[in-house]
Amino acid sequence: MAEGINRQWTLASRPEGYPAEENFALVESPIGDTGPGDLLVQTIWLSLDPYMRGRMAAGRSYTAPVEVGGVMQGEVVGRVVESRAAGFVRGDIVAAPLGWQEYGHVSGLRARKVDLSIGPISTALGVLGMPGLTAYFGLLDVGEARPGDVVVVSAASGAVGAVAGQIARLMGCRVVGTAGTDEKVSYIVEELGFDAGINYKSEDVGEALSSACPDGVDVYFDNVGGPVTDAVLERLRYRGRVAICGQISQYNLARPEQGPRNLRYLLTNQARMEGFLVFNYAARYEEARGRLARWVADGRVKYREDVVEGFEQAPRAFIGLMHGANFGKLLVKAGE
Amino acid sequence: MAEGINRQWTLASRPEGYPAEENFALVESPIGDTGPGDLLVQTIWLSLDPYMRGRMAAGRSYTAPVEVGGVMQGEVVGRVVESRAAGFVRGDIVAAPLGWQEYGHVSGLRARKVDLSIGPISTALGVLGMPGLTAYFGLLDVGEARPGDVVVVSAASGAVGAVAGQIARLMGCRVVGTAGTDEKVSYIVEELGFDAGINYKSEDVGEALSSACPDGVDVYFDNVGGPVTDAVLERLRYRGRVAICGQISQYNLARPEQGPRNLRYLLTNQARMEGFLVFNYAARYEEARGRLARWVADGRVKYREDVVEGFEQAPRAFIGLMHGANFGKLLVKAGE
Repeated sequence: MAEGINRQWTLASRPEGYPAEENFALVESPIGDTGPGDLLVQTIWLSLDPYMRGRMAAGRSYTAPVEVGGVMQGEVVGRVVESRAAGFVRGDIVAAPLGWQEYGHVSGLRARKVDLSIGPISTALGVLGMPGLTAYFGLLDVGEARPGDVVVVSAASGAVGAVAGQIARLMGCRVVGTAGTDEKVSYIVEELGFDAGINYKSEDVGEALSSACPDGVDVYFDNVGGPVTDAVLERLRYRGRVAICGQISQYNLARPEQGPRNLRYLLTNQARMEGFLVFNYAARYEEARGRLARWVADGRVKYREDVVEGFEQAPRAFIGLMHGANFGKLLVKAGE
Repeated sequence: MAEGINRQWTLASRPEGYPAEENFALVESPIGDTGPGDLLVQTIWLSLDPYMRGRMAAGRSYTAPVEVGGVMQGEVVGRVVESRAAGFVRGDIVAAPLGWQEYGHVSGLRARKVDLSIGPISTALGVLGMPGLTAYFGLLDVGEARPGDVVVVSAASGAVGAVAGQIARLMGCRVVGTAGTDEKVSYIVEELGFDAGINYKSEDVGEALSSACPDGVDVYFDNVGGPVTDAVLERLRYRGRVAICGQISQYNLARPEQGPRNLRYLLTNQARMEGFLVFNYAARYEEARGRLARWVADGRVKYREDVVEGFEQAPRAFIGLMHGANFGKLLVKAGE
């Protein structure tokens, strides 16, 4: 394989505002040799996730950005083509932070064997992967959801929001979700069992929330920020908790946006707001994955994948994700 | 005493924007009889505190507002003139939520005997009263300050901020305070031992913070909100904590203000922000008061009182408090 040709999507330039196709470049290069301790992995599924927008920006966030000219970061599920790492053999299916490329080398320490018995391998990037784990810890540990709580989830049909809302539902919370199309709203209510859904683009979110949560909100699982979040904060209950998972409404603004100063809602309600990243819960991933797998097997947690065929489609699909065009967990099918 | 004449400051009308003297009315009325279980208390010291602005507004906050025509709420230290409550005798010095009046009846259950051995009785409204307790629990329990933390306190020369900063200092934090005059800044640094002070009116707060806290802020004890808070949030460190005690910059705005959307600082730093009220820590008041009293006795926590002579001056003094005109804990000397 070392003589094979690899294809990579690199960051051609940093976007201002929404990313465009010109910000990405498709590069061909030799695959190269596999070093000691490493695996050569061929990508089958490439995961596209909102956090990648942060990696395209120059400023340091919680981790360093992608350099211009560097390979776009991301996690894949792929097949081990060559193993020089203990515990892995050719043919194993692994999840690994390979980036946007068809082939890549990764330390065996950073790869995880995918359990083929618990679901399609693509779920290792969705409901049984980072998005599902994020939902689990964000709802239960950061949001401290309790049975009987009123829980609001934004971007509720997305990879994280759909899982967060379903866990809240199965544990006895009342769950209200927001999404950007009537089809998505219908999906979270009819298919996922949310108690109510709000189309934040066509409805007055404040009025709809007042109607769906007349006594206010105990837990808000926030993926979006912006005006949806403003409306929820105004309706927080005593000792409410806000788990800040994402702020996608803010990621693609060419210049920062202003909004109402609303910290007083935290003060008068003695409420808490906390930003979190799933990595801090790494020691408990297997706890969460085991439970999620059981709920998926039981049909108590459903998932939906939005599959884009072809590695070369990755930038276009990612741009769509930034605009809310996907419906469910966005995946690129990059190989067999 | 029942035939005596009482004077009360009532809420004449609700302010729009900053309160004005016309919003208050001085009313005379008979003192009335003391019911079973009650005390008749003569006010010596009336405490004026920023939270009172919230009680003047119509909207329900964490507690019901003062009705128009009702006596302004507040805590006093006074002398028991008549006792029909077990455990109290005439002449006892008590702290009680009497409101803005020269005499008042209060249940013995809501009055607390002031320990005359631990300091001047006025301290029961300041460093050893609600402001001191607020500082203690806000810094330690909400802010979770730890030795070595960089702590920023806004309104740092005020009744709460001065105590919060000094506790942080004595426990081994680096402490930076903001205040509105050079005199106040000099006081917190020279007298109270803060590591640095920032005049938020004359300095660029962001630049001054970057200089005083080059590695960022672990704990922010916020009394003010607004642009000072914006500047601190931009400099939060990994796992930073924001204890929201007050938002005085927002209390007197005729219309709500906009500010930068900055929840992403919570997200990327996995930081936490929490509003709190001291009442939730009532079960631990004596723990805190005992420690504060010892620190005051040792000279490790200093306090400064801004005394206004004369009950009739209360509205004017309170309006000054809203404008930051006080310097230290604001008290009205209402009686002997």
